[in-house]
Amino acid sequence: MRLNKLLPALDWLKTYSKMDFQQDTVSSIVFTIMVIPQSLAYAMLAGLPAITGLYASILPSVLYSLFGTSRTLAVGPVALTSVMTASVVMPFAVSGTEQYATVAILLAFLSGVFLLVLSLLRLGFLTNLLSHPVISGFISASALLIVIGQLKYLLGIQSEGDTLIPLITSLYEHLSDINLPTFILSFTSIVSLLLVRRHFSGFLKYVGCSAKTVQLFGKSGPVLIVVLATVAVAVFSLDKLGVSIIGAVPNTIPSINTELIDLDIIWKLLPGAFLISIVGFVGSVSVAQSFAAKRRQDIDPNQELVGLGLANIGSALSGAFPVTGGFSRTVLNADCGAKNPMTGIISAFLILLILLFLTPLFFYLPNAILAAIISISMMQLVSVGDLCHLWRFSKKEAFLLLVTFSVVLVEGMQTGLITGVVLSLLFFLWHTSHPHIAIVGRVPGTEHFRNVQRFTVETHPSILTVRIDENLFFANARSLEERLQSLVSQNSAIKHLVLMCTAVNMIDASALQSLEKILDRLNDAGVKLHLSEVKGPVMDRLKDSDLIQHLSGKIFLTQHQAIEELEEKQAKI
Amino acid sequence: MRLNKLLPALDWLKTYSKMDFQQDTVSSIVFTIMVIPQSLAYAMLAGLPAITGLYASILPSVLYSLFGTSRTLAVGPVALTSVMTASVVMPFAVSGTEQYATVAILLAFLSGVFLLVLSLLRLGFLTNLLSHPVISGFISASALLIVIGQLKYLLGIQSEGDTLIPLITSLYEHLSDINLPTFILSFTSIVSLLLVRRHFSGFLKYVGCSAKTVQLFGKSGPVLIVVLATVAVAVFSLDKLGVSIIGAVPNTIPSINTELIDLDIIWKLLPGAFLISIVGFVGSVSVAQSFAAKRRQDIDPNQELVGLGLANIGSALSGAFPVTGGFSRTVLNADCGAKNPMTGIISAFLILLILLFLTPLFFYLPNAILAAIISISMMQLVSVGDLCHLWRFSKKEAFLLLVTFSVVLVEGMQTGLITGVVLSLLFFLWHTSHPHIAIVGRVPGTEHFRNVQRFTVETHPSILTVRIDENLFFANARSLEERLQSLVSQNSAIKHLVLMCTAVNMIDASALQSLEKILDRLNDAGVKLHLSEVKGPVMDRLKDSDLIQHLSGKIFLTQHQAIEELEEKQAKI
Repeated sequence: MRLNKLLPALDWLKTYSKMDFQQDTVSSIVFTIMVIPQSLAYAMLAGLPAITGLYASILPSVLYSLFGTSRTLAVGPVALTSVMTASVVMPFAVSGTEQYATVAILLAFLSGVFLLVLSLLRLGFLTNLLSHPVISGFISASALLIVIGQLKYLLGIQSEGDTLIPLITSLYEHLSDINLPTFILSFTSIVSLLLVRRHFSGFLKYVGCSAKTVQLFGKSGPVLIVVLATVAVAVFSLDKLGVSIIGAVPNTIPSINTELIDLDIIWKLLPGAFLISIVGFVGSVSVAQSFAAKRRQDIDPNQELVGLGLANIGSALSGAFPVTGGFSRTVLNADCGAKNPMTGIISAFLILLILLFLTPLFFYLPNAILAAIISISMMQLVSVGDLCHLWRFSKKEAFLLLVTFSVVLVEGMQTGLITGVVLSLLFFLWHTSHPHIAIVGRVPGTEHFRNVQRFTVETHPSILTVRIDENLFFANARSLEERLQSLVSQNSAIKHLVLMCTAVNMIDASALQSLEKILDRLNDAGVKLHLSEVKGPVMDRLKDSDLIQHLSGKIFLTQHQAIEELEEKQAKI
Repeated sequence: MRLNKLLPALDWLKTYSKMDFQQDTVSSIVFTIMVIPQSLAYAMLAGLPAITGLYASILPSVLYSLFGTSRTLAVGPVALTSVMTASVVMPFAVSGTEQYATVAILLAFLSGVFLLVLSLLRLGFLTNLLSHPVISGFISASALLIVIGQLKYLLGIQSEGDTLIPLITSLYEHLSDINLPTFILSFTSIVSLLLVRRHFSGFLKYVGCSAKTVQLFGKSGPVLIVVLATVAVAVFSLDKLGVSIIGAVPNTIPSINTELIDLDIIWKLLPGAFLISIVGFVGSVSVAQSFAAKRRQDIDPNQELVGLGLANIGSALSGAFPVTGGFSRTVLNADCGAKNPMTGIISAFLILLILLFLTPLFFYLPNAILAAIISISMMQLVSVGDLCHLWRFSKKEAFLLLVTFSVVLVEGMQTGLITGVVLSLLFFLWHTSHPHIAIVGRVPGTEHFRNVQRFTVETHPSILTVRIDENLFFANARSLEERLQSLVSQNSAIKHLVLMCTAVNMIDASALQSLEKILDRLNDAGVKLHLSEVKGPVMDRLKDSDLIQHLSGKIFLTQHQAIEELEEKQAKI
């Protein structure tokens, strides 16, 4: 059992048959062909030679297939983590140098270690810090930055920077250097890519392909465009006219040059590695979960940390950069018919074969078409609809999205993400420090108690029941003190204060201290303090405390009992 | 009305009579005499000439009396903010130099500005971040550091450092330089201070003083010791034997030397200024509130930010260092019979007179006795009882106290405080990311629903009611998804899932997104999702959302109604 948990592959390997293998091989071949352009493109996005994208698709994919819990997730280079890699590595080295490759490899290694540490310490909950508005703003802004960053490849000019203003300034300065052949190639590629994306399946059906063929190859249109573009460059020698191409692929895989690393660099890379690992993890788990839900399978987030952690360490060992489970990769994988992680292992093997024997085929592959692929897929991630939707739900959260979006654009991805997280924490703290406190009364004819301001309810002049709609802890302890003091001081008829604790799920020492102060002050004022509907976990906490030992009133199981008993007592007086 | 709120002094000035003034003058004279040694001592603690403590007791006290809301709080130099001042200023300058004074003044100014900004932006809730265990650990460790830091004055040796290890190392290295006269003076002072603290009131009674005199002068024992020690130094010329004394007081008050300030220093001082201002504010408000509660008066925390902010700016204008409302100052003030803030104004005037005409009296005042006063009052703040108390209540919070305590000792006050705050946030997030989710059933014969694991309750095989004991927001949205999915997948008989929302006080976009996902998955599984007992504020949020529009089940006002209707429906089938 424990071994199965550690190595989830044992689960599906048990029942794996020869027929499964045949099916998986077909799926893998199609998947591999279709995923190659994407992998090359995202390596370029990370500021590394495009071919590194293939290195990053072998060992990580195998390791995730063995240690991950999703049956469908495809792990490899992903746009968001790739561009984060570029933005983290850039301050340390110039793209294209050995130093750059070394720092990127180190970053993959550190991200892997972080994920494993999070798993060991059960700190996966930290990823919850990325709230929906922050992720949404972050993704939209990053995608926009990526598209703007790709313009240099699309136009064949030089440009630098990784935030909005330097990027645009730099593009503007070099605008006169546009390489016309590159521009024409880019323009044609984008138009054709958009066309095949929309119409290729229809075209296949139209020319009479079987439904199965259409399903398998319906999304292979982009591959066709890539092949055509590469052939065009080769035939017309466009590289001689200034169209930049991948060129010859080195025989050795890059590896860490330990001479270029010191503790200082490692120390400075840690925040970046941490952010990449949690952003990668959150994205990957959400993709895995949505596919698992469709097929009624389970995802174990903690084991996902292990799978993705090992995948990143594997990527570092392959001389590549941080990887994770990607949405578009996984959609491709599912479309190709992948039903279990064996496809990840087979396609890794196929990519290895390609790397060993077929790299000359990539010689004339133009960078511009990779940039076109990136740009098109990124434009879909810039979501204005999400902002409108949020705006209707909560202005505050829409504001959070906008702030994250703007800070990412202007100050960069790391600063933007951290700003978003800190701001969402502050908003939450603000909310919880101003707890909703309702005076409640009985809904006539029931045992049910609701807010006097929203319902017609019965109350008793000398009994005040207050429902505290929040956990009691340090962030609101002092505010609770102030509110109760002012409620009681406003009404001198009150003899009994009942705190209805239906919504109190936890209490900490700071809040207990405040309640003890409140009890003392109420005692002085001749008001008895009662508690009702205290939850089990809270009662466990309170039972030995001074509060309960000195409580002037009683603890009632239900609010109904409290009111019946107190009203009876008042009637007797 | 608005002017009264801005200048709370208008409230009490309206009814202020001549008799009040006479009483206040008597109180103020006694208070002033007694508070002087403390003020001198805390200036020394801040690394400034002792006399600066008097500068810090004039303008700040007047400004707080006019703008603050407490009737009893005494504002001036306070041990904790003084030692924080020293620890913040030390990295920028050597104690005793003009640079040091300038940075301390700047710090007071920045703290004042921070407090005013917090008030303007209504950010006072940020001070809630200081939870009880963090404050307790911080105060104990700081007090211990202060006492160890005073040993150099008590022993008459040199020593440096502001954290435990450098302090002790430095003391150990200079231990052979002990100045015997200083040591004897210190020892005698400490013993006599402890004696008069315990027995002076009794002694006054014994010699036949009236109850009123005892009440007024019962706590003036330390002043007597200070006078005696000063006279002893003067008479026996102990200063010639190496006992360090205050000496001549300069004629000019220190002021900011703008040439020594640049933006870089201001920028680097900001975190320290922020911490000093919130620590000072939290301490001051809690003292003010406890005195106000006794007298049934009100404290307005937001106006307190204004009062203390102006007091600090006033302190900067007087060439002094950060001030706040102090516990021992306020106790003295109350003991002297202060009933309204006029005492603050009168005593400020008296201190001004002393500064103008009586500074020669302080010439022979030995630093050792000030150190003795500080040490004795600080030893009372090291609280082991608090730790034991917390340990019984919650191991986690006791751990928090210990971590804060240790980090303050070893790494310094700022790092310790920040560590404590971050750790308490993490603990809270951890807790709230692992929400308590209870399956509930009806307590027989009532309309009341409780946890099936703690109570004997009635449930229905095809209806699952789940009470979520936590707010629904980004920190637990994903965990909720996982938990509900596994609950439903474990039991295939379930046709209706009722989410009982009694404890849900807020919902954000992340949680809404998760609920929508849950709804989709339940739809696929043929399970209807119902909500019950949704609170008003949460319902307001939900009513326009996709969740409610696509909800497969109903929203019930009460859990009781939900079960009655669903059971009836199931019975029909």
